[in-house]
Amino acid sequence: MRLPPGVSAGDFSAAIKELESAIGKEWVFTSDEDVNLYRDSYSPFWHENQEPIPSAAFAPDSVEQVQAVVRIANRYKIPLWTISTGKNLGYGGSAPLLNGSAVLDLKRMNRVLEVNDKNHYALVEPGVSYFDLYRHIRDRDLPVWIDPPDPGWGSPMGNALERGGGYTPMRDHFDAHCGMEVVLPDGELVRTGMGALPTAKTWQQYRYGFGPYMDGMFSQSNLGVVTKMGFWLQPQPDAYLSGSVTVPKHDDLTPLVEIFANLMNSGVVQATTTVVSPLAYSRDPELVKLRASGSTRDLEDYAGQKGIGYWSVSLPLYGPEKVIAAQWEYAKQKFSAAIPGATFRDGASYKFPLTEEQLTKIVNPVPFGVPSLQTFSIGGPKSQGHMWFSPIIPMTGEAVIEAQSVFDKVAQSLGYVTGTTGFPIWNFFARAFVIIYFFPIEHDIEKNRRSREIFRRLIKTAAEHGWGEYRTHTAFMGDIMDAYSFNNHSLLRFHETVKDALDPNGILSAGKNGIWPKSMRKAGA
Amino acid sequence: MRLPPGVSAGDFSAAIKELESAIGKEWVFTSDEDVNLYRDSYSPFWHENQEPIPSAAFAPDSVEQVQAVVRIANRYKIPLWTISTGKNLGYGGSAPLLNGSAVLDLKRMNRVLEVNDKNHYALVEPGVSYFDLYRHIRDRDLPVWIDPPDPGWGSPMGNALERGGGYTPMRDHFDAHCGMEVVLPDGELVRTGMGALPTAKTWQQYRYGFGPYMDGMFSQSNLGVVTKMGFWLQPQPDAYLSGSVTVPKHDDLTPLVEIFANLMNSGVVQATTTVVSPLAYSRDPELVKLRASGSTRDLEDYAGQKGIGYWSVSLPLYGPEKVIAAQWEYAKQKFSAAIPGATFRDGASYKFPLTEEQLTKIVNPVPFGVPSLQTFSIGGPKSQGHMWFSPIIPMTGEAVIEAQSVFDKVAQSLGYVTGTTGFPIWNFFARAFVIIYFFPIEHDIEKNRRSREIFRRLIKTAAEHGWGEYRTHTAFMGDIMDAYSFNNHSLLRFHETVKDALDPNGILSAGKNGIWPKSMRKAGA
Repeated sequence: MRLPPGVSAGDFSAAIKELESAIGKEWVFTSDEDVNLYRDSYSPFWHENQEPIPSAAFAPDSVEQVQAVVRIANRYKIPLWTISTGKNLGYGGSAPLLNGSAVLDLKRMNRVLEVNDKNHYALVEPGVSYFDLYRHIRDRDLPVWIDPPDPGWGSPMGNALERGGGYTPMRDHFDAHCGMEVVLPDGELVRTGMGALPTAKTWQQYRYGFGPYMDGMFSQSNLGVVTKMGFWLQPQPDAYLSGSVTVPKHDDLTPLVEIFANLMNSGVVQATTTVVSPLAYSRDPELVKLRASGSTRDLEDYAGQKGIGYWSVSLPLYGPEKVIAAQWEYAKQKFSAAIPGATFRDGASYKFPLTEEQLTKIVNPVPFGVPSLQTFSIGGPKSQGHMWFSPIIPMTGEAVIEAQSVFDKVAQSLGYVTGTTGFPIWNFFARAFVIIYFFPIEHDIEKNRRSREIFRRLIKTAAEHGWGEYRTHTAFMGDIMDAYSFNNHSLLRFHETVKDALDPNGILSAGKNGIWPKSMRKAGA
Repeated sequence: MRLPPGVSAGDFSAAIKELESAIGKEWVFTSDEDVNLYRDSYSPFWHENQEPIPSAAFAPDSVEQVQAVVRIANRYKIPLWTISTGKNLGYGGSAPLLNGSAVLDLKRMNRVLEVNDKNHYALVEPGVSYFDLYRHIRDRDLPVWIDPPDPGWGSPMGNALERGGGYTPMRDHFDAHCGMEVVLPDGELVRTGMGALPTAKTWQQYRYGFGPYMDGMFSQSNLGVVTKMGFWLQPQPDAYLSGSVTVPKHDDLTPLVEIFANLMNSGVVQATTTVVSPLAYSRDPELVKLRASGSTRDLEDYAGQKGIGYWSVSLPLYGPEKVIAAQWEYAKQKFSAAIPGATFRDGASYKFPLTEEQLTKIVNPVPFGVPSLQTFSIGGPKSQGHMWFSPIIPMTGEAVIEAQSVFDKVAQSLGYVTGTTGFPIWNFFARAFVIIYFFPIEHDIEKNRRSREIFRRLIKTAAEHGWGEYRTHTAFMGDIMDAYSFNNHSLLRFHETVKDALDPNGILSAGKNGIWPKSMRKAGA
């Protein structure tokens, strides 16, 4: 039996007995065979000593059982690492950051507690997956949409708490939440927002409640175990239309992004898309050569000859048919007026609900509120796994060009080859772009070491340019928090004060996003 | 010289000396004449002993000075009450909750630090008013809108921190904020979100930063003094169109609100409006009689004869001309299909920017991003002041009817006459309604006492029905927090734990929204 750090074999055995009596013997896992299932299958420490390995896993089925686990963990000072469905792949999966932590696995708590199709919300438990919620809604034929991220086996709650993004107008998953129930580190149960009113009728309709609005502190955090969470859903739209805009010159990116930002910030476009260069991915040898050594002018000429454009963005529009048609017309006018040579192409268009037949023909149904695992067959280069480097950059053409050039240089200087203009630029969140940079994980210790080195170099380089990551793999949480260093790390010190007050024994998710409990603070950092 | 509670005359004099040296003698106010200006001019305790009176006021001009004031207050345990422009009228104005608190007045910090018209945001200090920000933008002819609340002399930061609402698509003022700088109770300075990254370029573009998202805990709270705050602005829309929908029968409210909620939650309608009954306000004697004693049928007949309808809602639409025209057409179709006898009327329509001439003709320019004080001449019954009872209720017709009937009964049983169907129902926030119930403040002790009694009765009655207030006058903060009592007031106890950790001397805004520092907790409650 593995032991959590600082816990004696005798204490751990006693704790395990209490846990078995609290949540049932079959839901307390201590054998290597069981516990290994919680290791990160995409660990950047494959076959290295630094890989954090859990000591045990506990899978309660109710709020009361979560409270019991937390109270026992406090008594024996057992560090817990909370997961919902454990599918946070690319960011650590179900594995803890601190070696020997016990995984608090909430996947058995998988009840859809309510779906309301008049006020358009859902209330779910942590173990509910996007597939579960989708099926619940579909079985009842309710005219509301969920907003899945790329792979649909994850948890809406887990994804929102990690501040993940999707594709429809409800794409900012934390922003779309409304109301939480939380087990605090001492086992006490709170409800936030209107949930603090015992007979509340608006827990999933009004977010803030009365007094300080505390929900945000439970996101990307180790200050509580969220056991219920509400989400706003989108009423099923009537129709969808996508149109793409292509511009011929390198410098057209500036007006392209400026108009795009205006359309987004005005609410004319409300969903996720990417700004890409059609020049980035083709394997045409001439283009490969031009990307490596050619001038911007050469690339523009190539784009002109091939009729593919230098930059392109597609606009996904959801809503009443005539409204989205007018939005697309308006967008075309705006781009045409500002960018000579801009060209437009109508893309897919659908009416909802989709028929079964339509659905089977759509390769990636995620933008239509349908969870899928397609992303695993269509994404990225071949590898045994991956992790994501994901900095936030300003929504301007200048920032995109600067970021691409800066990140390219770092990658190339370390022997990584990326295409110029090759990073997809996403708008998962309002008002800013995020670059989602794919790092392969290999079954190759040397390659993984080099990847980690590059990753750390990128964090530093990004910080020097004023770009910070929105989320990261457990392996880099400390590095990234370290970059958020304004006023001698005052925000981190503030987090630590709050952590010490709420979790004096430091039992919840030690080290998460750089925040360590007092007893481990020096060693952790 | 008045003294703060628990502070000796000698200590207070010593503190005043230190404060004078830190922020300048002329910005430390202790004379009754000066300090009385901070009393609540709408106090429900007019000429009663319970009115809280400040002991002093300090008006720093910079972040460093705020830090100095907070540090001195800690040394001498002087309770501070923070205000920005001090215009929180109806909710306590610039007066503290705790008698003898010193007002920390931030109105000298009135710099507009940045307005960006490409990514559409502003960064401001606490003392900037809506008028200041509007003039700054107008002087530079920038194509962005602010979102003022009814009176424009208040502070965008103060209003957002109190979670106030406006009229345009950016109407949820706390939700529209992005990034804060905060002086903590111990004088330490933090920046939240991307502001924690020293060279951040996206402080006003991406809200969450990395790790726990702490901004919400500084709203409606006494956990810090916010010294800078970012806001998302709306790009100036091309046009505005309003259309009103009127329905003939009492029970039509259910489908009316259901379709309204669908349009709101779909993003087809994005701004603030009210659901009203045209039967509520007329003084026609026949109608007055019918309201008092008539049946729903009688009122329907009256509405039919007069051609005024039973319920009405107008839809404010902002955006490209053809888009908003299509949205209005779509809305009309939806209401027509569901509600026999629904009628429609085109309302005001504008193109932006408005000319000076147009602007002078518009009685209330607030929905067009133009701050105003018109509300003081057009609002409510005659009185010497007012306060607001403002519960959140579900966005359903049934809830509106239930709430109106329940609140009517309480008011009538206490001798208040309100019209049936007479409370305006607002959608200042996504997904829920808020009732804004006007309470007059009179220069009459007995009347004010009765108003306070009714107010407290309404809080209790609302809580029994699952409706809670979103914000309140200092006089009722404890009563309302008391209603948010789930699990033996666990959320309040959680707030208290955080308060004690961050503000052990209890110097910031004691009692705000029911949260008292440890030393005053028993006495305060």
